[in-house]
Amino acid sequence: MYVAQPIEWTDGGVVMLDQRRLPAEEISYTYTDYREVAEAIREMVIRGAPAIGVAAAMGVALGVQKSAAKTIEELKEEFEVISEALAKTRPTAVDLFWALARMKARFRELTRSHLDLAGIRLALIREAEEIHAEKKATDEAIGRFGAEFMPKEGQVMTQCNAGALATAGIGTALGVIRVAYEQGRKLHVLVPETRPYLQGARLTAWELHRGGIPLTVITDNMVGHFLKAGKVGAIVTGADRIAANGDTANKIGTYQMAVLAKENNVPFYIAAPISTFDLSISTGEQIPIEERTAAEVTHIQGVRIAPAGVAAAHPAFDVTPYRYIAAIFTERGVAKAPYTESLARLAGAVPAKAAG
Amino acid sequence: MYVAQPIEWTDGGVVMLDQRRLPAEEISYTYTDYREVAEAIREMVIRGAPAIGVAAAMGVALGVQKSAAKTIEELKEEFEVISEALAKTRPTAVDLFWALARMKARFRELTRSHLDLAGIRLALIREAEEIHAEKKATDEAIGRFGAEFMPKEGQVMTQCNAGALATAGIGTALGVIRVAYEQGRKLHVLVPETRPYLQGARLTAWELHRGGIPLTVITDNMVGHFLKAGKVGAIVTGADRIAANGDTANKIGTYQMAVLAKENNVPFYIAAPISTFDLSISTGEQIPIEERTAAEVTHIQGVRIAPAGVAAAHPAFDVTPYRYIAAIFTERGVAKAPYTESLARLAGAVPAKAAG
Repeated sequence: MYVAQPIEWTDGGVVMLDQRRLPAEEISYTYTDYREVAEAIREMVIRGAPAIGVAAAMGVALGVQKSAAKTIEELKEEFEVISEALAKTRPTAVDLFWALARMKARFRELTRSHLDLAGIRLALIREAEEIHAEKKATDEAIGRFGAEFMPKEGQVMTQCNAGALATAGIGTALGVIRVAYEQGRKLHVLVPETRPYLQGARLTAWELHRGGIPLTVITDNMVGHFLKAGKVGAIVTGADRIAANGDTANKIGTYQMAVLAKENNVPFYIAAPISTFDLSISTGEQIPIEERTAAEVTHIQGVRIAPAGVAAAHPAFDVTPYRYIAAIFTERGVAKAPYTESLARLAGAVPAKAAG
Repeated sequence: MYVAQPIEWTDGGVVMLDQRRLPAEEISYTYTDYREVAEAIREMVIRGAPAIGVAAAMGVALGVQKSAAKTIEELKEEFEVISEALAKTRPTAVDLFWALARMKARFRELTRSHLDLAGIRLALIREAEEIHAEKKATDEAIGRFGAEFMPKEGQVMTQCNAGALATAGIGTALGVIRVAYEQGRKLHVLVPETRPYLQGARLTAWELHRGGIPLTVITDNMVGHFLKAGKVGAIVTGADRIAANGDTANKIGTYQMAVLAKENNVPFYIAAPISTFDLSISTGEQIPIEERTAAEVTHIQGVRIAPAGVAAAHPAFDVTPYRYIAAIFTERGVAKAPYTESLARLAGAVPAKAAG
């Protein structure tokens, strides 16, 4: 089954699919300079926290590969410049900093080894590819754990895009749906368009359509109506951050979807890697909500829809209290209430054996 | 305070403001043929149940005025053709059928009177104008009854456009907000954009902005987030059809708004004229839901947002069960649970003395 490849390391450079042009056009670029990779992250050619992490790692590898440095000391200086350029792209993306820190730690190790410059360059490329491979394995594991909770047939619903485009694997929420579908479950996906950025209508619909999984696009205010109609067997969404008690921050609209699911006795699930856990905060109340530009609400793809001079709000995320969440699928297993215990257990657990 | 005029009878014909072009442009058309009026209703130049009722009545008056019929028998035949053309435009709007039935009843009376064709034509124009005047008085009364339930200050929320543009008066839900605001209540209106047609962002925002009432546009998936934030004092929406038990059909998204209101202890009100009551049906299950074209979901103002070849659903309305509704404001007073009794009482009551 077709899996979108938002980013790939190739001998010719870093290849990225331009997500801004989807679904109208499928255009890929091959970047041979780390500054182009940084620009692509900033301009949202690639988006989704895990995919951004992979892009940053590959950006570092590319920068080091193309560096004109002749000594390790020169390369160390240049590494800092490369790393800083990539760090400045999306200042709030946690995965970005995680990936940069990991590449830096690996670089330090390598500079203390007996490898020459060519060897260091190759080893950093391997590290970036390893990060990418780990993301894929994580998604596969989440998909296997979550698929068991999907209905044998009928409608399921998701929100935003927690798919291959966002993770550079098979996706988290969409990974669950994909694995379930490949297991033979006859699913039909209801895809809320997810205003203001339309990740559902543009990206999730595109991924499912390309993968041959049946879907129907709906507007965000149809969610309750379709849940009430009684044909939806499950909802599964991704997460941006999960507090110690299970409260989950995700794309705006997730909270109301979860409330409506509970009201209509439809199980609401989260699919997210352990890296999304933030056990340092006890509840979702402490999660800051990013307020983005109002222009994304008053305009759709550049076309003004609201009267000029009118105010608009744009909280990009909301918090779903744990009591609406039936289970959280991770790469190490499934968390259920009481979450404070189950999440801590999974976070501290030995990782499941890597897939593939 | 500015009140929009969506439709007016003039000597030159029926003048309509093109609501599809708002808020970008304020363009009016003058129709001189009833088929143009039918087309305008179908194509949503005018929308909103009460305004559609006024338009249908004026369409009948226009058709009869322009009829080439030379005898009452010929006019009777043509009346049926005119009436049927107007009836076929929008299936869910009960006001449309109510207005057509009233014009037909009046026409029957007139054909049995001693009036000649010219007299009948004039009397039908007067009947259509009378319907328009009654809608205005109805809105004023609903506004006065409902305003008492609005908070003294703070946020209120509405859905779609139940304003002057929808009713050809001061509006039902927006009429309540307008009267409350004029009484000195310091309201700030949260306006969900109301996809797919964006009546909130385009029309309600325009009406409030023109009327000087503070507002903030939000996307439909932000409704729950803002209700959870605890600053919304009340929600008031219009209705397309109210069953005997209080179940209410209204614009898609109303149901989920009502569920989210209940979950967050915010009172959810309906503001609607008695003409919206359909006491012949016992529950909302029997209300047919108009399914409109999927293209309105896959495209926004002509721009494709979803991939080509992908399915989309477009139920234009949903049904809110009575148990989520705190009260229903009508021109004859306020209905509260148990609705089967209170609605029947209001429906059978002597109308309140006409305002103004």
